[in-house]
Amino acid sequence: MVNIGLLGFGTVGIGVFQILESREEELKNICGCHIKIKKILVKDLNKNRPIKVDASIITDNFDEILEDEDISIIIEATGALEEGYTYISKALKAGKHVVTANKAVVSKHFEELTELADKMDLYFLYEASVGGGIPIIKNLKELLVLNEIVEIKGILNGTCNYILTKMEEGLNYSEALKIAQEKGFAELDPTDDVEGLDARRKLRILGSLALKAKILEKDIFLRGLRGIGPIDIEYVDKMDGAIRLIGEIKVSQNGYTAIVEPIIVSKNSPFYNVHNEKNAVLLRGDQVGDLIFYGSGAGRFPTAHAVLCDVIDIVRGVETIERSLAIRELENINKTIKGRYYLRLSKSSQDIYTILESIAWEVLHKEENIIIMTKDMFLNDILKLIKVLEVKEEDYFLARKEG
Amino acid sequence: MVNIGLLGFGTVGIGVFQILESREEELKNICGCHIKIKKILVKDLNKNRPIKVDASIITDNFDEILEDEDISIIIEATGALEEGYTYISKALKAGKHVVTANKAVVSKHFEELTELADKMDLYFLYEASVGGGIPIIKNLKELLVLNEIVEIKGILNGTCNYILTKMEEGLNYSEALKIAQEKGFAELDPTDDVEGLDARRKLRILGSLALKAKILEKDIFLRGLRGIGPIDIEYVDKMDGAIRLIGEIKVSQNGYTAIVEPIIVSKNSPFYNVHNEKNAVLLRGDQVGDLIFYGSGAGRFPTAHAVLCDVIDIVRGVETIERSLAIRELENINKTIKGRYYLRLSKSSQDIYTILESIAWEVLHKEENIIIMTKDMFLNDILKLIKVLEVKEEDYFLARKEG
Repeated sequence: MVNIGLLGFGTVGIGVFQILESREEELKNICGCHIKIKKILVKDLNKNRPIKVDASIITDNFDEILEDEDISIIIEATGALEEGYTYISKALKAGKHVVTANKAVVSKHFEELTELADKMDLYFLYEASVGGGIPIIKNLKELLVLNEIVEIKGILNGTCNYILTKMEEGLNYSEALKIAQEKGFAELDPTDDVEGLDARRKLRILGSLALKAKILEKDIFLRGLRGIGPIDIEYVDKMDGAIRLIGEIKVSQNGYTAIVEPIIVSKNSPFYNVHNEKNAVLLRGDQVGDLIFYGSGAGRFPTAHAVLCDVIDIVRGVETIERSLAIRELENINKTIKGRYYLRLSKSSQDIYTILESIAWEVLHKEENIIIMTKDMFLNDILKLIKVLEVKEEDYFLARKEG
Repeated sequence: MVNIGLLGFGTVGIGVFQILESREEELKNICGCHIKIKKILVKDLNKNRPIKVDASIITDNFDEILEDEDISIIIEATGALEEGYTYISKALKAGKHVVTANKAVVSKHFEELTELADKMDLYFLYEASVGGGIPIIKNLKELLVLNEIVEIKGILNGTCNYILTKMEEGLNYSEALKIAQEKGFAELDPTDDVEGLDARRKLRILGSLALKAKILEKDIFLRGLRGIGPIDIEYVDKMDGAIRLIGEIKVSQNGYTAIVEPIIVSKNSPFYNVHNEKNAVLLRGDQVGDLIFYGSGAGRFPTAHAVLCDVIDIVRGVETIERSLAIRELENINKTIKGRYYLRLSKSSQDIYTILESIAWEVLHKEENIIIMTKDMFLNDILKLIKVLEVKEEDYFLARKEG
C-alpha cells in the first residue's frame, strides 16, 4: 500500500482523486500495490464539493499530513506560490517524495528544490507543471542522454492560444478572454497568462533541463499578447499566417537566446494547426532531429493524468534520468535576437510614418493604423524606436515572422 | 560492462555504432557502466564500409555471437524477415535481451516473440519499428496504465509522405518516387511502402498494444497510394485539403475498425503540416485526451536513436510497462467503415457518369476524368461499384475525407 497526501482539492486535485478511483485495478497490476489517498488538505472543511469524499480524510492542517509516517508521497496541487513552496520543502525535509503541478513554485525554486530532493534521495517530479497532459518533461529528460538539445520552441500557454483561436473566429480580445474564463482556462486575473508570465515559467523549466544551465525567468525576454487587436489577426491571415505566443530557446556556439513573444507562423508550420487550449512543444536534438509533442495544455483530467504518471514512476521505482541542473555556463545573448517583424501602430502621424517607412521592408497599411513588415532587424532596435516614438504599450502590436 | 551483439551493419547498424561512440561518456554516467559493441554480424566480411571498424569484431557467423556468453543484448538491425525472425528467437532462447528495428518481424511474430521473451524473463523491445525516431511505443505503453485508448491515427510511412510532399510541389508520382529512392527513403522495390504494407505493419503493432487485442495485418483494411496522379493533388488542393496515407484504428462499443488508406485532411488538421519523411501519430486516451507525437519517420540517426533508447532501458533495468498482448476479444467491424469519398476515374463513359452521379454529393470535374465527392457511404459499397464498372486499379483514385 502506498499512501498519498494530496494538497489542494481544486480542478487538478479532484481529477487526481477521480482517475485514481477509476483506474484502481490497472494501477494495482502495474505498481504491484494499492495506491490510496490517505489525506486531503483543504482550506475550508465545510465547502461544498462537486464530488463526495469521506470526511475523515479531509483536513485543514498540513502538519497532520506531514507527521503521518504512512504517507510517503505528497501531491502538491494548491497552485499557490508561497504555500506551495513551503509545503514542498517541508515535505522533502520530512522524507516524503513530492509530485507537483505548480509551475510557479518549480520555476522560482527549481535548483533549490532539486538539490534538496537529491540530498534527501527523494523524487521531486513536476510533469504537470509544463504542457498539461503532454509527457514533455519525461521525454525531454530521456532525450538528454543521447542528444544535445539545440532548440526548444513551444506553445506553452493554453489560455493565450485559446484567445487567439477565438479571435481568428471573429471575436475581439475581451470577448475571447471572457469565454476562456467561462471555460475555466483563464483565471479571473488573466495577467500571468496573457502577459506571457506563465509561458515564461514553463520555458524556464524546460530550458534549464535541456541546456543544463541556469536559465532563470529574468534571462528570458518577455513580450505577451498585450495590444493585439482584430486588425492584427486580419492582416496576418492575409499573409497566410497566424499569430501564436511562442517560447523559444536557441543554442549556438556563442551562447543562447531565450524569449517568449508573439510569432507569425506560416500555414506550413507545425504550430499553425495548434488551436484552442492545445499546447505543442518542439525539441530539436542533434541525433533524433525534431520531435514535436502535442496535447491538452490545460484541463482537469490531462493535468491530473500528468501528476499520476509521476506518482506511478515513483511507486515503480523508475529512476528518473536526470542530470544535475546548472552544470553548464552559457552566455545569454538575447541582444542578438533579430528577425523580420510585423509592427502595427494605432496612433500615427506623418512624422511617425516617415520613420517607420525607413525600417520597413513592406508597408501593409496606412490609414488610421500603420502596419509594416520591418527589414531584418534586432528586436532591441525596434523596441528602442517604439520608445523614442513614445507609443503606449496598448497602442502597438509587434510579432516576429517565423523562420 | 554491457556487451552488445549487433546484427546488420547497414543504415541503422552504422548509426547505432556512431551514436554509441559519440555519447560514450553520457551513457556511462546514466547507465553506470560502459556499453560496448562486442561483435557485428555482416553478410560480406570484405565489403567496403563507410566507417572504420576493428576487423576483429566483425563476423559473418551468427553462432559466434549467440554462443558468446559475455553478450547480453542483441540489436537486430538486418531488416530481413526470415533471418531476422530466426536471429531474434534464437537470441531469446539463448537468454539474451533483444532490441529490434525490424517491423516486418515484429508484425508477423508479435505475440509469439513477446510470449517467448516473457517466458524467458527477458526484454524484447522494438521502439524503432514504428515511427523512426519518435518515442511512440514507450509513450503508448505508459499511457495504457491510466487510459483506454479509443483511437489511433497516424502517418506511419515516411516514403509515402515524402512522395506526397513532392507531388504537392509539382512533381508527378514517378519523379517523386525517384527522388525518394535517391534520398534513401524508398527501397528499390517500393511496393511495401506505396501499397501501404509497411504502414499496415506499424498499425498492427500499435493497435495490438493499444487495444490489448489480437489485431493482425489481415484485420486491417488496406488501400495504398496506387492510382494517385497530379490531378488528384490539384483537386484536393482546391478543396483546401491535402492527401495523406493514414493508418487509423477506432474503438466503439460494437468493436473496432482498422484501415490504412489515403485520407483528405483539411488545412486545420494536425496532419496537414506533416511533410516529407516526417511521421505523426495521434493517440486518443479517455483521460489524457488527444496526444500527437511527431518526428522523423526514417533516417539513420533517428532510427538508431530509438534503438539505443531501448538499450538504455534494458541496461538501467527500467521495467517496461507492458501488459500481455491479446487479452481482449474485440470484434472487427471494418464493414462499417464509411465516409464521404473523393473518387476520380480516368476512363469514363456516359454510362459510368450516370452511375457515379447517383452516388455523388458533388461532381467536381467531368471531362476526360470524372471526379466526384460521394455522399456519406460505406467504403465497401463504393469498392463494389468500382468493381462492377470494371475500372482497373491504376485508373482510379479514392480517398476518404477526414472527419
